[in-house]
Amino acid sequence: MKRIMLVVSYDGTNYHGWQIQPGVITVESVLNEAVSRLTGEQIQVAGASRTDAGVHALGNVAVFDTCSRIPAEKFSYALNQRLPEDIVIQESKEVQADFHPRYCKCRKTYEYTIINRRFPLPEYRNTAFFYYGKLNVGKMRSAAAAFIGEHDFAAFCSAGAQVKTTVRNIYDMEIEEEQAEGRIRIRVTGNGFLYNMVRIITGTLLEVGKGTLEPESVPQIIASCNRGEAGPTAPAKGLKLLSINFDTD
Amino acid sequence: MKRIMLVVSYDGTNYHGWQIQPGVITVESVLNEAVSRLTGEQIQVAGASRTDAGVHALGNVAVFDTCSRIPAEKFSYALNQRLPEDIVIQESKEVQADFHPRYCKCRKTYEYTIINRRFPLPEYRNTAFFYYGKLNVGKMRSAAAAFIGEHDFAAFCSAGAQVKTTVRNIYDMEIEEEQAEGRIRIRVTGNGFLYNMVRIITGTLLEVGKGTLEPESVPQIIASCNRGEAGPTAPAKGLKLLSINFDTD
Repeated sequence: MKRIMLVVSYDGTNYHGWQIQPGVITVESVLNEAVSRLTGEQIQVAGASRTDAGVHALGNVAVFDTCSRIPAEKFSYALNQRLPEDIVIQESKEVQADFHPRYCKCRKTYEYTIINRRFPLPEYRNTAFFYYGKLNVGKMRSAAAAFIGEHDFAAFCSAGAQVKTTVRNIYDMEIEEEQAEGRIRIRVTGNGFLYNMVRIITGTLLEVGKGTLEPESVPQIIASCNRGEAGPTAPAKGLKLLSINFDTD
Repeated sequence: MKRIMLVVSYDGTNYHGWQIQPGVITVESVLNEAVSRLTGEQIQVAGASRTDAGVHALGNVAVFDTCSRIPAEKFSYALNQRLPEDIVIQESKEVQADFHPRYCKCRKTYEYTIINRRFPLPEYRNTAFFYYGKLNVGKMRSAAAAFIGEHDFAAFCSAGAQVKTTVRNIYDMEIEEEQAEGRIRIRVTGNGFLYNMVRIITGTLLEVGKGTLEPESVPQIIASCNRGEAGPTAPAKGLKLLSINFDTD
């Protein structure tokens, strides 16, 4: 018996999110089926991040245990032949038998894409949030700086989440602007994120960009620990889980 | 009566190309229907580039004549409300009554996207050609230089095209590499392109990148005027018509 780790990329457009649910197609259910067919065992993968419907990933992580003799590194090739084009395994390798991606210290990086121009771009219709009004990216950058560090992010957590603590540490946050397409990308790295946290941070930065909120008010919003003080939750389709790095100590 | 010009962007994945054909959905047929419904007239647009099935555009151009009182600049907004998400008008304006985008001097810019890494990226599955083997981008750049200038491009034209001359002028060609995603973009600007010309140039550059052809042999291939000497036609889905500029004298 060995434990295999998969780095999983997907376009979330056609899935009801990661987590298995009765009656709908999810990334997890498609993976379970592909791994089970490949190994001839009844396999349930365990994922690192249960992304919402419409959210994308370049590097989500899943593990499963198998008695298969297929070499760990070959699972990527074998699974990609059995998976649809919108789910691709980027890497497979053996990990320690007690490694669980959800209960491990890690650094996660998310990216949120906004298309800010007069009219939408067809190629981004499923992978970005379109906004036509003027956005002040300089102010958005000032506001973003306030999120860096260890804070209680209760104001940036949707109701319904069951967590022991709402304290998280954001290591880095950057906003990249590409003028020709009017593309703005918010990239944030932290030791973990609350439910909808990146989308609520993005919604708050959008309010700052529009001028509805001043960058100076963001520290107060964080300190309030009140969801009602922060901006709205930005749409799922603009969000992408870029990577999960387990090499932190 | 006035002549309106539209700058049209589309994701070509779900269309049988630009040109209207019986029994299938094309970009032109969807545009004709939207403009006709909006104006109440029976309108047929005339396009600048009849892109193939699967090819995308950021800035294809179409014109039509109308007696409608809608201001020229408002057609973009009004049409976008009636068009599917994968076709978006980026601009609308009035042009001279004798302006025809197909029979006008212009500069066209196309972009071809290759994803060159171990495994494909789901988000590029419809907009790039995936190639996993090693590509020498330096050699591809050397080879690209040979295309610049006025040449008889008969070796880079698929059979079946009816043109007076196969001489075209390529003004500029550049190859951009993005390491993180393994994305290679070939961008080419010219006064016009033969049938499949950009895709055959790309197929030839791919042979150079793989080492099957040397950059030094490209001038001979051009001089041969023999389609059999050039590389294969690269797949349609990697191609995008970026812009058409009519402001040249």
